[in-house]
Amino acid sequence: MSGPDPVGQVDAFAVPRFAGLRTFARLPRADDVDRLDVAVLGAPFDGGATFRPGSRFGPAAIREASALLRPYSEPLDVSPFAEAQVADAGDAGANPFDIPEAHGAIEREATALHNGGAAVLGLGGDHSVALAFLRAAARRHGQLSLLQLDAHTDTWDAYYGAKVTHGTIFRRAAEEGLIDPSRSVQIGLRGSVYASADYEENRELGFHTLLARELDDSGVEGAAALARQHLTLPTYVTVDVDVLDPAFAPGTGTPESGGLTPRELLAILRALAGGPRIVSADVVEVSPSYDPAGVTALAAANVAYDLVCLLVLARRQAG
Amino acid sequence: MSGPDPVGQVDAFAVPRFAGLRTFARLPRADDVDRLDVAVLGAPFDGGATFRPGSRFGPAAIREASALLRPYSEPLDVSPFAEAQVADAGDAGANPFDIPEAHGAIEREATALHNGGAAVLGLGGDHSVALAFLRAAARRHGQLSLLQLDAHTDTWDAYYGAKVTHGTIFRRAAEEGLIDPSRSVQIGLRGSVYASADYEENRELGFHTLLARELDDSGVEGAAALARQHLTLPTYVTVDVDVLDPAFAPGTGTPESGGLTPRELLAILRALAGGPRIVSADVVEVSPSYDPAGVTALAAANVAYDLVCLLVLARRQAG
Amino acid sequence: MSGPDPVGQVDAFAVPRFAGLRTFARLPRADDVDRLDVAVLGAPFDGGATFRPGSRFGPAAIREASALLRPYSEPLDVSPFAEAQVADAGDAGANPFDIPEAHGAIEREATALHNGGAAVLGLGGDHSVALAFLRAAARRHGQLSLLQLDAHTDTWDAYYGAKVTHGTIFRRAAEEGLIDPSRSVQIGLRGSVYASADYEENRELGFHTLLARELDDSGVEGAAALARQHLTLPTYVTVDVDVLDPAFAPGTGTPESGGLTPRELLAILRALAGGPRIVSADVVEVSPSYDPAGVTALAAANVAYDLVCLLVLARRQAG
Amino acid sequence: MSGPDPVGQVDAFAVPRFAGLRTFARLPRADDVDRLDVAVLGAPFDGGATFRPGSRFGPAAIREASALLRPYSEPLDVSPFAEAQVADAGDAGANPFDIPEAHGAIEREATALHNGGAAVLGLGGDHSVALAFLRAAARRHGQLSLLQLDAHTDTWDAYYGAKVTHGTIFRRAAEEGLIDPSRSVQIGLRGSVYASADYEENRELGFHTLLARELDDSGVEGAAALARQHLTLPTYVTVDVDVLDPAFAPGTGTPESGGLTPRELLAILRALAGGPRIVSADVVEVSPSYDPAGVTALAAANVAYDLVCLLVLARRQAG
Amino acid sequence: MSGPDPVGQVDAFAVPRFAGLRTFARLPRADDVDRLDVAVLGAPFDGGATFRPGSRFGPAAIREASALLRPYSEPLDVSPFAEAQVADAGDAGANPFDIPEAHGAIEREATALHNGGAAVLGLGGDHSVALAFLRAAARRHGQLSLLQLDAHTDTWDAYYGAKVTHGTIFRRAAEEGLIDPSRSVQIGLRGSVYASADYEENRELGFHTLLARELDDSGVEGAAALARQHLTLPTYVTVDVDVLDPAFAPGTGTPESGGLTPRELLAILRALAGGPRIVSADVVEVSPSYDPAGVTALAAANVAYDLVCLLVLARRQAG
Amino acid sequence: MSGPDPVGQVDAFAVPRFAGLRTFARLPRADDVDRLDVAVLGAPFDGGATFRPGSRFGPAAIREASALLRPYSEPLDVSPFAEAQVADAGDAGANPFDIPEAHGAIEREATALHNGGAAVLGLGGDHSVALAFLRAAARRHGQLSLLQLDAHTDTWDAYYGAKVTHGTIFRRAAEEGLIDPSRSVQIGLRGSVYASADYEENRELGFHTLLARELDDSGVEGAAALARQHLTLPTYVTVDVDVLDPAFAPGTGTPESGGLTPRELLAILRALAGGPRIVSADVVEVSPSYDPAGVTALAAANVAYDLVCLLVLARRQAG
Repeated sequence: MSGPDPVGQVDAFAVPRFAGLRTFARLPRADDVDRLDVAVLGAPFDGGATFRPGSRFGPAAIREASALLRPYSEPLDVSPFAEAQVADAGDAGANPFDIPEAHGAIEREATALHNGGAAVLGLGGDHSVALAFLRAAARRHGQLSLLQLDAHTDTWDAYYGAKVTHGTIFRRAAEEGLIDPSRSVQIGLRGSVYASADYEENRELGFHTLLARELDDSGVEGAAALARQHLTLPTYVTVDVDVLDPAFAPGTGTPESGGLTPRELLAILRALAGGPRIVSADVVEVSPSYDPAGVTALAAANVAYDLVCLLVLARRQAG
Repeated sequence: MSGPDPVGQVDAFAVPRFAGLRTFARLPRADDVDRLDVAVLGAPFDGGATFRPGSRFGPAAIREASALLRPYSEPLDVSPFAEAQVADAGDAGANPFDIPEAHGAIEREATALHNGGAAVLGLGGDHSVALAFLRAAARRHGQLSLLQLDAHTDTWDAYYGAKVTHGTIFRRAAEEGLIDPSRSVQIGLRGSVYASADYEENRELGFHTLLARELDDSGVEGAAALARQHLTLPTYVTVDVDVLDPAFAPGTGTPESGGLTPRELLAILRALAGGPRIVSADVVEVSPSYDPAGVTALAAANVAYDLVCLLVLARRQAG
Repeated sequence: MSGPDPVGQVDAFAVPRFAGLRTFARLPRADDVDRLDVAVLGAPFDGGATFRPGSRFGPAAIREASALLRPYSEPLDVSPFAEAQVADAGDAGANPFDIPEAHGAIEREATALHNGGAAVLGLGGDHSVALAFLRAAARRHGQLSLLQLDAHTDTWDAYYGAKVTHGTIFRRAAEEGLIDPSRSVQIGLRGSVYASADYEENRELGFHTLLARELDDSGVEGAAALARQHLTLPTYVTVDVDVLDPAFAPGTGTPESGGLTPRELLAILRALAGGPRIVSADVVEVSPSYDPAGVTALAAANVAYDLVCLLVLARRQAG
Repeated sequence: MSGPDPVGQVDAFAVPRFAGLRTFARLPRADDVDRLDVAVLGAPFDGGATFRPGSRFGPAAIREASALLRPYSEPLDVSPFAEAQVADAGDAGANPFDIPEAHGAIEREATALHNGGAAVLGLGGDHSVALAFLRAAARRHGQLSLLQLDAHTDTWDAYYGAKVTHGTIFRRAAEEGLIDPSRSVQIGLRGSVYASADYEENRELGFHTLLARELDDSGVEGAAALARQHLTLPTYVTVDVDVLDPAFAPGTGTPESGGLTPRELLAILRALAGGPRIVSADVVEVSPSYDPAGVTALAAANVAYDLVCLLVLARRQAG
Repeated sequence: MSGPDPVGQVDAFAVPRFAGLRTFARLPRADDVDRLDVAVLGAPFDGGATFRPGSRFGPAAIREASALLRPYSEPLDVSPFAEAQVADAGDAGANPFDIPEAHGAIEREATALHNGGAAVLGLGGDHSVALAFLRAAARRHGQLSLLQLDAHTDTWDAYYGAKVTHGTIFRRAAEEGLIDPSRSVQIGLRGSVYASADYEENRELGFHTLLARELDDSGVEGAAALARQHLTLPTYVTVDVDVLDPAFAPGTGTPESGGLTPRELLAILRALAGGPRIVSADVVEVSPSYDPAGVTALAAANVAYDLVCLLVLARRQAG
Repeated sequence: MSGPDPVGQVDAFAVPRFAGLRTFARLPRADDVDRLDVAVLGAPFDGGATFRPGSRFGPAAIREASALLRPYSEPLDVSPFAEAQVADAGDAGANPFDIPEAHGAIEREATALHNGGAAVLGLGGDHSVALAFLRAAARRHGQLSLLQLDAHTDTWDAYYGAKVTHGTIFRRAAEEGLIDPSRSVQIGLRGSVYASADYEENRELGFHTLLARELDDSGVEGAAALARQHLTLPTYVTVDVDVLDPAFAPGTGTPESGGLTPRELLAILRALAGGPRIVSADVVEVSPSYDPAGVTALAAANVAYDLVCLLVLARRQAG
């Protein structure tokens, strides 16, 4: 880990946090730093959404909310921006009309960042963008374990004949060999589904699941233990904000009652420290026009911060 | 269960859920089906509200939010729309100026549905409409056990001299013999009240109560056990969305801090399966103009869905 | 004009306007009437939007706002729902992922309505749906004059390589011969554009234009005169709500400062009575998640009402 | 005009306008002053509304917005709070369930104020409260001329059998002899109506009307001239905020597209100075839960301020 | 406790709660009562905020929300307004441009109330106002124990060179000897901070802390036990609404994910009854323009109510 | 105009406008270009506001809304970003607690830009920041003519003893000799004021004024003529968004009913082309937390665009 000291955030004791261009966490742009350990890359694409659109504005909303983030994480005992060069790589230029082309653009930009040695944190966009991020991560790191925090399995086969949508990408990822479902975990599933077969088929793919309602019994510890047990490959963490209850994340495409609290979600994430080797991650499905109080973007920004910390810790571990 | 197969929802894999006229859960209208096992009937009346009005638009908001509901309930293991003919019976034409006349219209429509053999799920409207629904249900099923999920007892005697308001209807229901309070349960009570006598008098009426703050000790299991123990008559379930904390249900008439989460509320409802014989139910006090993020209507739609499932399960049980 | 008397609105003196399932203007569904003179057809598709999405929820929002409409138009001296059978034909089942397929579905449903003898009023949806409506109308009525009330020409050639988007459809319509630009009029154009050539090329296509800023001099009368002069073919009227200033229509995809007031817009529409033979029309680009006070949907509902009146008057004229 | 100097507003150069209990315009409460020339009286009642309720919170919202008002009106050249004792008389305690009882309470409070020599400015509340205010004013001043700024005539006969609603009160006022329609003026009428007879019957009652769309030709001057010509009795001015276009007043019960701008409305009011002898007035139909940006309450507060000025000028004139 | 019976709330069974001028809990103004046991004093000042301003409108918003409060607290078994004279002392006239001058004004008004024998409940305003309230309380009661419910320590040294801001006041309070940190407790701390030293230095000042994430283990009981153990001096309770999770309190200056629920917060407060001798308290950082659903103000009003109850109970105890 | 071709906007036909970091109009950052002809500089300071704060977030909101701006202005016939190097200079790091220090920081940054040969467009912030911008402009260009589009004169002497607030800065500017009021023009004044002397004293300072209500007679042409007649010095244009009616600009600190429409405002600005030599400008008082539909920021972004065009045209003129 040679090279210059990382360039960190604008100093919030000198320049107020409401001032300045909105980069993630007031960090430098990737173009302005000499090395890049963790890259935050926006994927402003919502062409894969089946209900409410609008997550194309998610990256901008997360950046705006991220102005409140500070340099030190007490729960994880890490100063991510001092220990590693974290920077904002901007947004992939995703074509809103054409899913394959948009995914291609995202994958290309993520791949370039991986190739430059950076861990990538994606900001969605609808959940379909995770497929592009996974393709880039798997090209770099081989087959992956997936930790999916989500209300939905996203392993349906197709919507209106379309095979790549925000509800089908993890079936695709399994088919493409990007992830090994038997070494992957889904937490937070809930809501009415189309048929009893939905969960069965999802489990037949191999996923280990913990329903939202099962969390009452398992607790955060049980959820974390499940994750630590099965995430044995290089791990990709995907957080669909709809894993949270709609009160905490109204600004999302397909909200489901009965979800997690941010305290639970953050505790699960933090319990991963020292566990699976996390190599990439994303936070998706923030749709700001349904978020009048901004709480969804704020929760997502905090999740993104913890994911950055985990990526930095994984880097430290990998030493 | 002879007759034709039920007509279910518009297929969300073929027609997007944002398309089409808004019926509850994209189900057929009652006029368009040949039989009717569960009828969803709106009661767009808020003339009984003592603080914020607006729940006259509650049925429309719940229908809009219900577009997200799907055919299968995993927690209750039932496909309600396949097992029974559920349909949207529209709204009772309630006169906004005249409480007795409005209640009369609601009662007439509900009675007709009961008489046709349907279980009725009411969508409020302020809580006063529950009195009309109860009158119709009791005429069909005799005296009822009441399960009331609510922040308030709604057993005050009068407001400004009026005996039938959203805060007095369960005293009226007891007086009319529609319910047997000693075989009825109230869960979620909280908030400042007018006098220490309020809760005492409520208990003197016979109600078994579990305050919101007692839920921390009893847990969901304790609440469900209390309900299963006392709801020994044919049971009417009434859910005032203000049983939820205001963060989960800001769009309501008289919000009270310190309420339940949707996860708790749904868990309590689901724990009723196989227990009391539920014959009718309602969800009330959704006031959309105070619900900028739509979370109240969404929670109510999910509650309504679980109530439909319970009504279908009760029908199955009754065989 | 034989046949039974039209079925009109639910009577607002008997049933409050906030009660009942939301059809356009509380009219019957097309399936429930024996004949159909004017059909209101939703096109809940926003896959052609280049900036803010969300108009897939436009038809639902317009229907909700249309509950306020009443049976008689004083400015046009017509009782549209008494003179003709107007009904709500629901929504075309548009695939959100695939522009050609969605347009195909809209065109098929509109064509069926035209073939049944109904004039079609489309409710968008982003402006790209107008191409589908135009194809259906031109198949029935031959080449059309277009009256376009809009902030943008929508005659750009392509976005990100896509030829059919909400900003390119009238170039496509001209190329396909659906409209004759030299007998078409655009009113309300404004805002920054990509190049000076934009307006030039638009005029080279043949369109007669009146910029928003020119309306200060021409007045409503001048605008109407321009329309009456050039709309000599059977006429299609398309109203993009962004023709209004953003204060009157914030809930839209690409708002532009300096637009019309509803009073001006309605006056222009009403001045068409007795003029061009209007055979079909649409109102598009209502995006409710950007419309916290509901004023955009309300304006659109009123525009839709006047368009229905014009279609009924044209039918009377055609006798 | 003997007696002590009036107690005016809290001094905004000394105490910020966001500080302090919310009385109208930061004026003293009526109880705290020795004399009372103009009394502002809230009528928080919306039980007469046929569509959206919520104006029961109108007086509170107008008071909150009125914190911005300052002591001098340049257009009317008057310092109303220095020239007369203006004070906030609080709210009449209106029973939300019972129209006659609520109206009785409002009328009693207004009558007491009139009897004490004060001119009364009412803050609604739905428009039905104007009947109570008119009864009080007519008892004091005899039959009145009415200037009604409104989108609707409010002279329908009944809704759902109810004779006193927010849409019927001026027919009632005429029947009771409170107003002389032939010496009364309505400005701003528009929107779809129930039948062509609506406007005819309204004119048969005697009202002189200027439709909103006629204002384009008449201008503000024409409107003012009409008012000055016919308002020959002691005059009551009633302003329904729905006279404004919905963009300026979304927070109201029955918004209609194509309305006035605040600049037009204020100009019409100001042109009354030196004209009719205004003895009482009201501003009604502010429904804050539909007013997310607060512009409706702000417009109403400014209208209320100009009405106070007119009442003070009339008092000066009466000398 | 001689003197006349306290003047309580306006009777909500006679006058609807939406009627009347907005004082805290519909209580009398301090000027209108003969004695004063508990005084509610607004501090509408946000000049000390480092991120979002707007809490200058906090006292008004809390008063508006407090209309829902009723006379009896079941959990604390007290009728605070009957047992003591509680009244609304209005707002201190805080200069928005000058922190010392604003604090001086608040301190003077609070001191006068303390000197008159009243316990003071402050309504903020940003958290900096707590310093003024503490100075007044300490002058009366000597050095104090502080119970701070807050997401942040507020013991940083300076922002942009300023020593008195909403993030530095408890360091100042310790330096001035107003509080004894070693007999003070902070509950709810969380969020990213500037450096690992932040919490260390805070603890070096002497504070006993319970992080939000530690509450999962300690439970409400543990939190209350910690408070009861250390709050051995006359105690000041300060509640920054950001102690709640942003879903429950979006309307605040520096929201942090992962906070408490209102049920937890209220339970902690209620567990203080019979414990520390509470002599003054505040609720701060309510910023209404970020609170579209009003839930923040509602939670704060309920917290304020419980604090009033605790002050009345402490007074009873002191007897 | 030597040097390299200007770097313009990100190409909206290639990269969607919702993608990418938010600079003004998707222009490059000042740091990333070799020369700078027009610099857009944010002044995120609202410490001078007397009523609603929040304009510290104004620059960010204007940048977000400016994503819709395109390269060519048809009314002014200029491609500003092709003809000159326009870039985003970020925000001055204004201390929120200390007016002189914040103004100093803004002035320093603006001065540096002026010294580098750039024309400066300021984005507020409250109107007090105009004083800092004026100081920087006058140092470069000598005494200035001021064109002020505003509801208020902002020439009061002091608030709560403070001489530099958003309501006093133009009196200060006159006293400091930065502007010559006798060659300055104010357009749009309106609203209640403190005393009749307010306007008199303002005129005694020398300002030429056109009240909002006078615009009805003068028209846009009269307003423009007044400006062209008197702005004979190098001219600074300051646009307070409260010059617009609150419906068009609810998100501002001190809204006043009866204001301009954006169509009027833009027409007045455009009529300046070829007239006064404009050397610097600002748009201020955008307070996003009061702007739920975003229309204020959108109007401000469009005003900013026209001001950039005028600065580029002035540069062309100066040759």
